[in-house]
Amino acid sequence: MAGNTFGKLFKLTTFGESHGEALGGIIEGCPAGIVIDFDFIHSEMQRRKPGQSSIVTQRKEDDEVQFLSGLFEGKSTGTPIGFIIKNTNQKTHDYSHIKDSFRPSHADYVYEQKYGIRDYRGGGRSSARETASRVVGGAIAKQIIPDIKINAFVSSVGNIFVDKPYQDLDFSMIESNSVRCPDIDTAGKMMQLIKEIKKQGDTVGGIITCVIQNVPIGLGEPVFDKLHAELGKAMLSINAVKGFEFGSGFCGARMKGSEHNDLYNSDGTTQSNLSGGIQGGISNGMDIYFRVAFKPVASLIQKQEVLTKNGEIIEQHGKGRHDPCVVPRAVPIVEAMSALVLADNFLFSKLY
Amino acid sequence: MAGNTFGKLFKLTTFGESHGEALGGIIEGCPAGIVIDFDFIHSEMQRRKPGQSSIVTQRKEDDEVQFLSGLFEGKSTGTPIGFIIKNTNQKTHDYSHIKDSFRPSHADYVYEQKYGIRDYRGGGRSSARETASRVVGGAIAKQIIPDIKINAFVSSVGNIFVDKPYQDLDFSMIESNSVRCPDIDTAGKMMQLIKEIKKQGDTVGGIITCVIQNVPIGLGEPVFDKLHAELGKAMLSINAVKGFEFGSGFCGARMKGSEHNDLYNSDGTTQSNLSGGIQGGISNGMDIYFRVAFKPVASLIQKQEVLTKNGEIIEQHGKGRHDPCVVPRAVPIVEAMSALVLADNFLFSKLY
Amino acid sequence: MAGNTFGKLFKLTTFGESHGEALGGIIEGCPAGIVIDFDFIHSEMQRRKPGQSSIVTQRKEDDEVQFLSGLFEGKSTGTPIGFIIKNTNQKTHDYSHIKDSFRPSHADYVYEQKYGIRDYRGGGRSSARETASRVVGGAIAKQIIPDIKINAFVSSVGNIFVDKPYQDLDFSMIESNSVRCPDIDTAGKMMQLIKEIKKQGDTVGGIITCVIQNVPIGLGEPVFDKLHAELGKAMLSINAVKGFEFGSGFCGARMKGSEHNDLYNSDGTTQSNLSGGIQGGISNGMDIYFRVAFKPVASLIQKQEVLTKNGEIIEQHGKGRHDPCVVPRAVPIVEAMSALVLADNFLFSKLY
Amino acid sequence: MAGNTFGKLFKLTTFGESHGEALGGIIEGCPAGIVIDFDFIHSEMQRRKPGQSSIVTQRKEDDEVQFLSGLFEGKSTGTPIGFIIKNTNQKTHDYSHIKDSFRPSHADYVYEQKYGIRDYRGGGRSSARETASRVVGGAIAKQIIPDIKINAFVSSVGNIFVDKPYQDLDFSMIESNSVRCPDIDTAGKMMQLIKEIKKQGDTVGGIITCVIQNVPIGLGEPVFDKLHAELGKAMLSINAVKGFEFGSGFCGARMKGSEHNDLYNSDGTTQSNLSGGIQGGISNGMDIYFRVAFKPVASLIQKQEVLTKNGEIIEQHGKGRHDPCVVPRAVPIVEAMSALVLADNFLFSKLY
Repeated sequence: MAGNTFGKLFKLTTFGESHGEALGGIIEGCPAGIVIDFDFIHSEMQRRKPGQSSIVTQRKEDDEVQFLSGLFEGKSTGTPIGFIIKNTNQKTHDYSHIKDSFRPSHADYVYEQKYGIRDYRGGGRSSARETASRVVGGAIAKQIIPDIKINAFVSSVGNIFVDKPYQDLDFSMIESNSVRCPDIDTAGKMMQLIKEIKKQGDTVGGIITCVIQNVPIGLGEPVFDKLHAELGKAMLSINAVKGFEFGSGFCGARMKGSEHNDLYNSDGTTQSNLSGGIQGGISNGMDIYFRVAFKPVASLIQKQEVLTKNGEIIEQHGKGRHDPCVVPRAVPIVEAMSALVLADNFLFSKLY
Repeated sequence: MAGNTFGKLFKLTTFGESHGEALGGIIEGCPAGIVIDFDFIHSEMQRRKPGQSSIVTQRKEDDEVQFLSGLFEGKSTGTPIGFIIKNTNQKTHDYSHIKDSFRPSHADYVYEQKYGIRDYRGGGRSSARETASRVVGGAIAKQIIPDIKINAFVSSVGNIFVDKPYQDLDFSMIESNSVRCPDIDTAGKMMQLIKEIKKQGDTVGGIITCVIQNVPIGLGEPVFDKLHAELGKAMLSINAVKGFEFGSGFCGARMKGSEHNDLYNSDGTTQSNLSGGIQGGISNGMDIYFRVAFKPVASLIQKQEVLTKNGEIIEQHGKGRHDPCVVPRAVPIVEAMSALVLADNFLFSKLY
Repeated sequence: MAGNTFGKLFKLTTFGESHGEALGGIIEGCPAGIVIDFDFIHSEMQRRKPGQSSIVTQRKEDDEVQFLSGLFEGKSTGTPIGFIIKNTNQKTHDYSHIKDSFRPSHADYVYEQKYGIRDYRGGGRSSARETASRVVGGAIAKQIIPDIKINAFVSSVGNIFVDKPYQDLDFSMIESNSVRCPDIDTAGKMMQLIKEIKKQGDTVGGIITCVIQNVPIGLGEPVFDKLHAELGKAMLSINAVKGFEFGSGFCGARMKGSEHNDLYNSDGTTQSNLSGGIQGGISNGMDIYFRVAFKPVASLIQKQEVLTKNGEIIEQHGKGRHDPCVVPRAVPIVEAMSALVLADNFLFSKLY
Repeated sequence: MAGNTFGKLFKLTTFGESHGEALGGIIEGCPAGIVIDFDFIHSEMQRRKPGQSSIVTQRKEDDEVQFLSGLFEGKSTGTPIGFIIKNTNQKTHDYSHIKDSFRPSHADYVYEQKYGIRDYRGGGRSSARETASRVVGGAIAKQIIPDIKINAFVSSVGNIFVDKPYQDLDFSMIESNSVRCPDIDTAGKMMQLIKEIKKQGDTVGGIITCVIQNVPIGLGEPVFDKLHAELGKAMLSINAVKGFEFGSGFCGARMKGSEHNDLYNSDGTTQSNLSGGIQGGISNGMDIYFRVAFKPVASLIQKQEVLTKNGEIIEQHGKGRHDPCVVPRAVPIVEAMSALVLADNFLFSKLY
């Protein structure tokens, strides 16, 4: 019942099920007078939408955003921005087989247990389709913090990793390939792996790295709402995410303080950046970077055991049009959630 | 200015600096009529407090909690529980050397930049001393969800790891040693490492694993306030934390769906538990487990470059009484934050 | 930017301008499994909509609600309920004359000052058209507290007052006349007055009394969120409201304690009810009743001085289709806001 | 359990019972770097405290505020300000007679019903003693909006009214008499009435008028958090308040639009101010003024029927030291709550 709003000053509240009339949301806290770039919003939506290439799901969703309020003569007015995205291409009959059964590692079972009822079509509210609304919110958020650069990319798929530091990558290459990995050689290997996995009717996990640059010093609201805590929550709220680390991350846990401390330059920048751009929960002006782990999608095009409402275990063959690897399409979602966090904290910083 | 409250229904708001008059907080949302076990609260505070053993800081802090409201004749009354912890043993003169300089990888610099002023004594608000209030909140939280078992322990220090699954560990051994590792052999090695590190005036990072058992099905508020997203935020809000993963975590990102899916038993439990007890953001009744990475403490008892307010880099020798490794004392904090998340979500579950 | 959400557990967030594409909102916190009565929602919308009778504005607005999510097979699913109401009958050209001028006692001027930009068509966000979304929210809220009876009615228009206690009125007569006053004689006089006022191109204020019966004991969250404080805020948030009093209200300020105290019966009910059903901010099971004062609508069909953007005072003749007296159409809005407050507090009461 | 926080950006959370160890609270959102005037805080506390004159309760409460955090070297640091006020002079034995009975028009009964337990000593959490914490919060709030002038005064006691517009009063006379009425003749009559009422062991209600001047244009967050809606909620949250009206208030409901509209001057000010300084929920720069109705205190020093826990009606003679008229001491509370609302909205206005 709760939990549909993200942010405190720049707020996105979403609604919508995978196969209902429409998804949508309300964006509050957008300052007035901002000239909105609708083409940019459209292009962000295109990055997320299914059917972009052979390695993602072939579902067709137009994902046209309709803005209903809060904008006037091309500018934000300071009032809430309502929007909807119609569900035009949903094939309800595809999902009838899941009405009375619970697929492994899906949210079917817990929704049924928690609410006593669920919209079983396409996963209902638990479908990643909900993230379309997040991308709308993020696209507006990016426009209120235009100086901050947010670049996410796929840094691993299965066991294939980019083995360079992000500083050695050319972010302009991210969109050059359908796997969204700026290291072209690695991108090719990832693509190969995903195609093989797809052929098996299987899926594979991966990792997205996100780098946020040009962040002003002072964003973040300790003690509980530290900037990285908000980023972590934002990422963990994305479907299929299992882990988050920033700066030195889990590697930092193996280090000594004398190795880990980032020594200052006289201008307040630091020589190293194991801290990941955040100290004590507050941005220090250095690059913020973090990694987000995605599990493999649970929807397989294979035979699989499912649990029925009657408590029987039966075999079912997965069908539908699913992503063999979710990370390429999750890149714009990671960016959108980052933008929501930064815009919210940017507004807080105006209070000081 | 913001960010001092954790939770929505079961809420903890904290205040207090390391060297001010007192720390404290207000706990809201504690149901009325609960018989409070004050000995338990005291013992939780003892677990966190400094000076417990040779491997932690030798600062003496009594950490006596005084409850000021919300309790009557030993029971909660449903009104807010105010409490304070006096700062009795703070030696202000120890910290005068940091008044005009910023230590590397501390929050000194960003606080100064953000607020234009800071209580520099002992780290002020950014000190981990603030977590004492969290332990009070967590100790109350645990009492409103008595059936849920929360066990955190140290699973790595530097490069020394517990190499067994948690199912093979005896949680009753956690408190048997000062490093709080239930695997006695490994605990010994960790202790040895910490002693060496301490001798060098250095520090070392580590990982805490937390296992939460006997959780009812249905806790968690998607889409943004998924149970693991709240747990992740809770952990990332603890000082020195750099990463969070639950269930299969970062390893899950390497796996295939056919390996990762947790097949159902006919009673709704699952045969494996790579999901980590949470599906779609909602607890499924299986064990919740996660890992939290802590960087090495930044306060070294070594010579180190610091930045002065005048923009000079000078050498300074660290002093004071600091933990060579923070993870043993962070165990009760991880548990406390877990308890806050679970109590809050438990109250939400009453609304259905 | 803020201020578009009402409630904490049962929450309504609204968006929409008078002459944008659509109004709408998101309802969160509706428990799952409730069979929704759509006819009832439609009839509530009909009560609020313009053009119902000769004494209200002759604008035609269909005010058809489209639900987009949160409902499945006729029941609530526990997920957020998104809805829109299209603005089909807005004549934008009617309002062009107010683009560069500020009408007296309208929000034109302050919106321009606050946001630097405004959607001037029909009042934009400040239009009472926004209350259509509140009626949707209230109609859902009423369905989750079916035992609580909420009856609002017009108790005064200008200087014409109902001079009976509410206990002597027959609430079933409220909808029998277009002024929504259950005292038929008085209703006739009110209607007469409104017609005269309308002929003059003028407007007149009035008072709505609301009686809430069958309220369980224990609703209300002191100290700040006392039940009457929430009701007061709810009413004062409605366009044109200037005052709120409950129980003895302003009359109570003239009384002595020995006259004002409500003596108990042995079953905990009280002999008198000057308290208005609320003690210390918590419902005591007696009838809750309050009065809400509405100023006369500021839009006149007369010549009137307006302020231009250039700082000139010029004469302008008001046009458009406005209500000569807003209170008859505000009756369902008062009820809707009451229902939102009670549903929210009802959910809170489940936590104890 | 909820309801102990007021404000969104400038937030006051309070705790404490009348006869517990201490009252107190946490103030969040105070900008950093403000030089705090502690003498002013002390003098505000003196205005509220009991025992100031012969017409108020003769209880002695020192009401010394101890600040525990958030201040350093006399300035705010941007971190939360924790404070306590010890309950030093509470005579617990005075209240033993109310342990098993419920006094008419007190909160005893509903607290017992809602929570199943109550701290019966002196009203516990429902005691107006809680407002001491509000005065601390208000005294800090006033210091962050120093240009805004807030003056509250007693405008009626029982049937004795100040019959002048506020513009004809000299606010500097408010503190010249113990009834806090700037009209000296009327103050004398009020004082006389209160003394007579006190002799009878009875109590009497009254009205406080509050005038807020020099408010910047643009404060207020429609549609739900209109400035007057927040002020109304703030006032209605004060013990014993039964009504709130601003600007023309209930009188406005009798007027015609052509009488009520405030015509503009060319500088955007208005010739009249029936709007009360707020249009569409946003301050317009004119004086904000409102009236708050207080019922007579329910604690009488007379024989009175009470309800026992066993459901018997018995006679009891009220004792203790109570205010015969609460409004003089409520003046600083009305101001404090006004200051909280304005400081909160002032911070919001920084976001635009």
